[in-house]
Amino acid sequence: MIGAGNLATNVAHALCGAGFQIVQVYSRTPASAMTLAQSVGADYTTCFDSLVNDADLYIVALKDTAFVEHIADICKGKSERSLWVHTAGSLPMDIFKGVVARYGVFYPMQTFSKQHIIDFRDIPFFIEASNDDDKEMLLQLARAISNKVYEADSQQRKSLHLAAVFTCNFSNHMYAMAAHLLEKYNLPFEVMLPLIDETARKVHHLAPLAAQTGPAIRYDEQVIGKHLEMLNDEPALQELYQLISRNIHEFSKR
Amino acid sequence: MIGAGNLATNVAHALCGAGFQIVQVYSRTPASAMTLAQSVGADYTTCFDSLVNDADLYIVALKDTAFVEHIADICKGKSERSLWVHTAGSLPMDIFKGVVARYGVFYPMQTFSKQHIIDFRDIPFFIEASNDDDKEMLLQLARAISNKVYEADSQQRKSLHLAAVFTCNFSNHMYAMAAHLLEKYNLPFEVMLPLIDETARKVHHLAPLAAQTGPAIRYDEQVIGKHLEMLNDEPALQELYQLISRNIHEFSKR
Repeated sequence: MIGAGNLATNVAHALCGAGFQIVQVYSRTPASAMTLAQSVGADYTTCFDSLVNDADLYIVALKDTAFVEHIADICKGKSERSLWVHTAGSLPMDIFKGVVARYGVFYPMQTFSKQHIIDFRDIPFFIEASNDDDKEMLLQLARAISNKVYEADSQQRKSLHLAAVFTCNFSNHMYAMAAHLLEKYNLPFEVMLPLIDETARKVHHLAPLAAQTGPAIRYDEQVIGKHLEMLNDEPALQELYQLISRNIHEFSKR
Repeated sequence: MIGAGNLATNVAHALCGAGFQIVQVYSRTPASAMTLAQSVGADYTTCFDSLVNDADLYIVALKDTAFVEHIADICKGKSERSLWVHTAGSLPMDIFKGVVARYGVFYPMQTFSKQHIIDFRDIPFFIEASNDDDKEMLLQLARAISNKVYEADSQQRKSLHLAAVFTCNFSNHMYAMAAHLLEKYNLPFEVMLPLIDETARKVHHLAPLAAQTGPAIRYDEQVIGKHLEMLNDEPALQELYQLISRNIHEFSKR
């Protein structure tokens, strides 16, 4: 397992829980490498030169920039029979081309935190590989931990990742802005939790456009004007509020 | 029940289910008035002049603008002993001042759809009234359908409503943008549901700022640049992506 961040930690735990052996964990940060290694019964290293050279599978779960920068160092001197995968939504599979012989992608589309190890059963996995045998092998590996395993080429995965940024990171930022406002007004964030849950639950049954409510759909000037006024001392939030409200209004007319 | 929209429909069902009698439903739209009235065993009218004049409680659940425009017509000629409430987050209680004798606010903070009648037990209610007896009466009424009943003055309610717009309407718009992108790429929206659920679940345990993941936190130019490029034919989404990403990055530094 090359990486010991949020995604690496969750994937390593899931594979370990399904009976697979994690041989070694790499992280640049000794404490991260050690923590993950200990919890899955693996060795660890903080140095690419000390990576084992004959693992069945190398899972690269580094930040995109770190991976792109160090791919040659990471892959050099390893057995020709090893299979390599990365876990990144936005990197093409072909980043491995000409570097290693067997490669693919093992992309779990989820938001991970080290603090909370999650159940993988419902996490969609998107698989790609440089040959059919390896694809089959990766599909089976993913199916050992998840019930939602799909094939996706690099283009589809890139699209999924972009949509996931809206779905997850941007939604979470809206929660963060609400938390910021509530803190300012001395109100507890937890009063928002039922609303957060219902907003998420609703789109299981209704398309998000049909599920939309609130003042922006009809661009209710009275409510929106009051809200913008309340944000006079928060220019960043004011700009965000105005742009998203206009956007909601325009999409509702489509 | 004055109004037969999403909120009115859900509140009427909840009160009816708790044993309260809905005497009459008003809606400008005959079909809406009739549908809700029939489902809760009430009469209906489409005309303010035909409102019953001696209800114990009038619940006004109209759009803010319609309510503000018609408040005099709605309230005229009613019994002095009737209590009046509205259900709006962003309207002050004092909108009733000088119009009726007894008044208050009965604000359930949730996103409602007629298509899906929801369980009120966990919905936060925020109560305000023009005198203590009526406040107590409204607190008891809310407690008959919900376990999360709070007092809140008009200023606090306005703040809650603003935060709720970010939490619910804006998050839902992020889902809608993801749905739009996935449709374009011929991918099913349902692959996003586990991510939506986990993003919502996560903030039950972590503050949203701590829960944030993805390329925007460290403003990963490589990933963000690719995403913006993918949105070249969607200038509205491109602008949204850029503004929210910058905003996430700036907030992460606070």
